[in-house]
Amino acid sequence: MDLKQDLQVRIDEAFSAIRFPDKPADLYDPITYTLGLGGKRLRPLLVLASCQMFGGETADAINPAIGIELFHNFTLLHDDIMDAAPLRRGKETVYKKWNSNVAILAGDTMFALANKYMLRTRPQAISRVVELFNQTAIEVCEGQQYDMDYEKRDDVTIPDYIEMIRLKTAVLLAASLKTGAIIAGAGTTDCDFIYRFGINIGLAFQLKDDLLDVYGIQEKFGKVSGGDIIAGKKTYLYLKALESSGLQAEAFRKLYSSHDIDSPVKVSRVKGIFNELNIELHTRKLIDNYYQKALQELSGISLPVEAMELLREYTAVLMEREN
Amino acid sequence: MDLKQDLQVRIDEAFSAIRFPDKPADLYDPITYTLGLGGKRLRPLLVLASCQMFGGETADAINPAIGIELFHNFTLLHDDIMDAAPLRRGKETVYKKWNSNVAILAGDTMFALANKYMLRTRPQAISRVVELFNQTAIEVCEGQQYDMDYEKRDDVTIPDYIEMIRLKTAVLLAASLKTGAIIAGAGTTDCDFIYRFGINIGLAFQLKDDLLDVYGIQEKFGKVSGGDIIAGKKTYLYLKALESSGLQAEAFRKLYSSHDIDSPVKVSRVKGIFNELNIELHTRKLIDNYYQKALQELSGISLPVEAMELLREYTAVLMEREN
Repeated sequence: MDLKQDLQVRIDEAFSAIRFPDKPADLYDPITYTLGLGGKRLRPLLVLASCQMFGGETADAINPAIGIELFHNFTLLHDDIMDAAPLRRGKETVYKKWNSNVAILAGDTMFALANKYMLRTRPQAISRVVELFNQTAIEVCEGQQYDMDYEKRDDVTIPDYIEMIRLKTAVLLAASLKTGAIIAGAGTTDCDFIYRFGINIGLAFQLKDDLLDVYGIQEKFGKVSGGDIIAGKKTYLYLKALESSGLQAEAFRKLYSSHDIDSPVKVSRVKGIFNELNIELHTRKLIDNYYQKALQELSGISLPVEAMELLREYTAVLMEREN
Repeated sequence: MDLKQDLQVRIDEAFSAIRFPDKPADLYDPITYTLGLGGKRLRPLLVLASCQMFGGETADAINPAIGIELFHNFTLLHDDIMDAAPLRRGKETVYKKWNSNVAILAGDTMFALANKYMLRTRPQAISRVVELFNQTAIEVCEGQQYDMDYEKRDDVTIPDYIEMIRLKTAVLLAASLKTGAIIAGAGTTDCDFIYRFGINIGLAFQLKDDLLDVYGIQEKFGKVSGGDIIAGKKTYLYLKALESSGLQAEAFRKLYSSHDIDSPVKVSRVKGIFNELNIELHTRKLIDNYYQKALQELSGISLPVEAMELLREYTAVLMEREN
């Protein structure tokens, strides 16, 4: 775990060193504010860990690692406008603290900045890194669009949902890992293995997020217990329950989409139904399914097992979190 | 002029060949719609003309040319949200036809697509092309922020305004030209000359736009005569009139910022004051000033005069337009 902390320190130092111009204030203040909110900085860590694992230099990967985190934060800025989200990491979102226009433009600027950071790597890697980055960005936008579409649709299936979280969440984790691999000069086959490892970890990670929203120890700042239930979000838990609820499906759908019921009452009723239908177990099984697939992909990589220890440990920690 | 038409045909063909996925429809339909609105496609033409001028291959420049136009259209999509603009090129803007969220996300996707197109050029040019592109994108965002800031400020000076249009408009024209030059393998000094040529042409171009908004033959579709005056936009014409109006400055400021007066009456009164103060002449002089500076920069380029004929002719046409 020392190695992980070492990488984390490098990432934090790199972020602390970023300076933006003073003017125009309404463009750069929201960017500084957003980056100041912190976050796990999971994606840059994946870039560096993967690069190191494949024998690359951290120095070649640190700027693309920052670029990917800048991109991730940019998507949050724009998502918060679209989702009308007032809070992010326990603080006011940019669109609430300033306004939508500020959040749009600061986001656009962050995306451009992110692309500049992606370029600062080994010359031989630039083209593939930037291509992967922007292809991933397109897929993340597709995921966000599906997410919004699903709010209005009543016929969302479990495969639809998995495809949505693949695009919205998993591809960026996968791209982070592949970026590190490309920079380290890994072969195409290894790049594909690490990418698919990332996709499966990403799916497991998002499903775990959905699970913890209902069944987690609710001490995380900035998150409301049962937030997805209150919002009527069509998560895997909901879709699985709907599928399993037989004749009660219509009543359950009505309850879940309702906004008239007192929030704690709604959460408690929906959780009751989830419990009856064993939804927690179903979800944990699916998470483990994707986790096992991920490990299988990892085992395909042409590296000694020891080299992959950090990544395996780190993802195990991610998978085991219960809040 | 045959050469110019030849380039225009190549650009139109390249745009016609672009195909987007069918799904998600609310992501890709607005992009297809936006590109279908057409426009002058001035920026791709500058990329190709510059590339050709410096002896490069059009084939190496066509994709970055498309990328820059995609970027330009992305900024219009987001600007229209921020400016609450209902019409663009005589048609409903994306945010009006769909909604703000659709316009935000379609715009983000276009920016990512644009970056992918920027990569499709000579390997030796990629890094510099993508760096310039994203640095320019940041500056365009800064320009848009200043533009919005100035709406709320009463102390905007003429230099402030020139700096704003430099960022919002001129840098992208300059970057288009420099992109073509980089792809053609032009030397650093020549790249700098063509960039500064572009900045000065861009300033002249925007000032001409401002002038024609008041003094143009109003037959352009999608544009309202005196639109800037009706909106109370702090253009060079306004700032120069304010500077020249002496004791009447406060009354003029009040008139110009007013939204209570009937539009044709306001336009007629403001135009009356512009006429008294010779604002048209002042503006034409400043435009010519920047145009002459541009030609001076062009003359610094280490190419025979004949090689630069197309660019010189084309910019002359741009400068001479009266609507």
